[in-house]
Amino acid sequence: MKNRLHFNTTLGEKAKHAFNALQKEKESIGYYALPEQDISHITAYCETIPSSIESIAVIGIGGSSLGAKAVYEFLKPVENLRRKLYFFESTDPINIKSLLSQIDLEKTHFLVISKSGTTVETFAIYKYILSLQANASCYTFITDPGSALEKYAKSVQAQILHLPDNVGGRFSVLSVVGLVPLALCGIDIKALLAGASKIKNSFFEDGYLHDILLKKSLFYAKNHAQYHINCLFAYSESLKYFCEWYVQLWGESLGKKQRSSAFHVGLTPIGLIGPKDQHSFLQLIMEGTRDKSVTFIQIEDFEDEIKIPNTTLAHLESLDTLNNLPFSQLINMQCNSVMEALKVEENIPLDSITIPKIDAENIGSLIFYYELLTSLVGELIDVNTYDQPGVEAAKIILKKKLTHSL
Amino acid sequence: MKNRLHFNTTLGEKAKHAFNALQKEKESIGYYALPEQDISHITAYCETIPSSIESIAVIGIGGSSLGAKAVYEFLKPVENLRRKLYFFESTDPINIKSLLSQIDLEKTHFLVISKSGTTVETFAIYKYILSLQANASCYTFITDPGSALEKYAKSVQAQILHLPDNVGGRFSVLSVVGLVPLALCGIDIKALLAGASKIKNSFFEDGYLHDILLKKSLFYAKNHAQYHINCLFAYSESLKYFCEWYVQLWGESLGKKQRSSAFHVGLTPIGLIGPKDQHSFLQLIMEGTRDKSVTFIQIEDFEDEIKIPNTTLAHLESLDTLNNLPFSQLINMQCNSVMEALKVEENIPLDSITIPKIDAENIGSLIFYYELLTSLVGELIDVNTYDQPGVEAAKIILKKKLTHSL
Repeated sequence: MKNRLHFNTTLGEKAKHAFNALQKEKESIGYYALPEQDISHITAYCETIPSSIESIAVIGIGGSSLGAKAVYEFLKPVENLRRKLYFFESTDPINIKSLLSQIDLEKTHFLVISKSGTTVETFAIYKYILSLQANASCYTFITDPGSALEKYAKSVQAQILHLPDNVGGRFSVLSVVGLVPLALCGIDIKALLAGASKIKNSFFEDGYLHDILLKKSLFYAKNHAQYHINCLFAYSESLKYFCEWYVQLWGESLGKKQRSSAFHVGLTPIGLIGPKDQHSFLQLIMEGTRDKSVTFIQIEDFEDEIKIPNTTLAHLESLDTLNNLPFSQLINMQCNSVMEALKVEENIPLDSITIPKIDAENIGSLIFYYELLTSLVGELIDVNTYDQPGVEAAKIILKKKLTHSL
Repeated sequence: MKNRLHFNTTLGEKAKHAFNALQKEKESIGYYALPEQDISHITAYCETIPSSIESIAVIGIGGSSLGAKAVYEFLKPVENLRRKLYFFESTDPINIKSLLSQIDLEKTHFLVISKSGTTVETFAIYKYILSLQANASCYTFITDPGSALEKYAKSVQAQILHLPDNVGGRFSVLSVVGLVPLALCGIDIKALLAGASKIKNSFFEDGYLHDILLKKSLFYAKNHAQYHINCLFAYSESLKYFCEWYVQLWGESLGKKQRSSAFHVGLTPIGLIGPKDQHSFLQLIMEGTRDKSVTFIQIEDFEDEIKIPNTTLAHLESLDTLNNLPFSQLINMQCNSVMEALKVEENIPLDSITIPKIDAENIGSLIFYYELLTSLVGELIDVNTYDQPGVEAAKIILKKKLTHSL
């Protein structure tokens, strides 16, 4: 991965302090240790799932689904995967029925993922699916040790996998939560972790990313009152769900009351896909309020050599400049053109990330890069990056409504 | 459609002025007249496409694809459609190949949509597909009268349909651009236009929406410096692509230099889907910076009575409150709970839109509602709602790059 910043900031005491804070967090926050975890129990678990199973269905929402979806959708078009992966993550009845129509219940294994074991969406869907498929051997439960869900799973003699300690939902993709569904589909989770590990080492062991991540987070934090919208502009359709994962990670981690002042702060994430969103959101970036930073993601080599043919269309000869161009070169030229156009404008902080190709290692790198960046920015804008107190109020109101409707 | 505003603002001279401006725009801006257009030529055209054609593929980007996609994806899960609809809208080679693997070229009709006839993405893809399917009768071209593309289409004796005058891409879904692909799939475009017509009349003929749309646009415009992020939180997975259409409409229309001052202004659109995004973006709305308004969209009746079964799970008895609840009721309870939780917070302007059910008429209404709202806000924040000068710079740079790579 290469990351080039087109803005500057000087590292000083604040950066040193943030780096030390992350060093310290490694002792208590679980996600930092995930790249080096032992995955033998996951591999062993995967072997218990019969080869007659053709589909894996995750029943889970938010942090329980977005990470695996990001990786799966990135790799699916280029890899010959062993199984298909589905996500039941909405209480929308039309959506539930549409997903069910795509799978064969007899050839599907369900992963019910809930940290606490009381997520309303997950259990509404689980109860419904259980009424269609009562066989306990078709389900595996992923939950915290000792949770009510674990007790239930034991009572029906279903398989149970445990979440590691102190790994929040949105930081859990590299734990069993993401690794199990991905491994069951035949995705190389070792390579995924290796990609994450590279980024981790580069940052903590004073490698290439040490200064870059500190500079970027310091710039975002220092200027968060002005540049409070952070666009991720990815030039690859395959990164669409990575953008959704990023939106959760960034928004839920960095939209908070400050620890010291209880003042509302927040950085708003926007996920964009190029070149499509050049025809949508670009106008707003170019000419709208100067409140947005933009990070471009490019794929150096799509490893696919489909080309624009050498055809001249009558009356459209001006388009001959496209002839013989590989699409992978065109899409990157489009990205570079947008970057150059934005560089001419004032007050739009830009940077660009390039990954060499579409594979498990590279998406692992992107994931860990963004997790570290989130932790750094959270520390620097003085919020608790790892909680989400703001989502509780609606849950309590729903609980009351449900009780009264009984 | 019902629309309830949970904020207040007083209508006065400014509102009257904006209303009159829109009345005047009706003479020059084409989209206002679309609900009452004569569609007999579209119906006649559709009959020329053989019944052996099973798929329709749009080759187009931005305004040429987002609208039809929004309507198609909204109706697809509930209607028994005649044909499938695909969208070639990216130069990403992996995406092009993945789409091609899903269609049978012999049973596909392609709609090449480009106003000017020089959109780089559209012609890169068209040239490639032409090399696989050379038969001109498999293509219809939708373009401006007299464009270079029309001349080309004539030279190969392909069918041509014309865009109406003065309808910009992002306001074109109710013109041939959207109606043709939708009608070919068997979607009731008459009902779609009837839904739009209802909203138009309600606004212009002093109906229910007259005051509501003026109040809402006035509030957004007056407070645009503070509430410059406008979230659309739709409680239905089927509205996912409607949100993408909204993002283009809002961002590209309202992110501009002001007409009178050349000052950068802009309203940033965010599309959210509930309940999924309760587990993602909600934290940022609840506790983040007070710079966001939120509009909820609910579907009153999903016309689908799948229910949560009356099951008790050992150790998870607290979830029995869900038993016997229809999913359509649960999802709306979730939406109401989030609204109530946000109402307790200060400084988060809310409103809610309810449509009775998922059908063509209702999505037509939603589309026209948002088009009118965009026109009103654009007028009130003093921008040219209908141009997009900011996207030209990158196009010029790309053109140069392409010429030099020859």
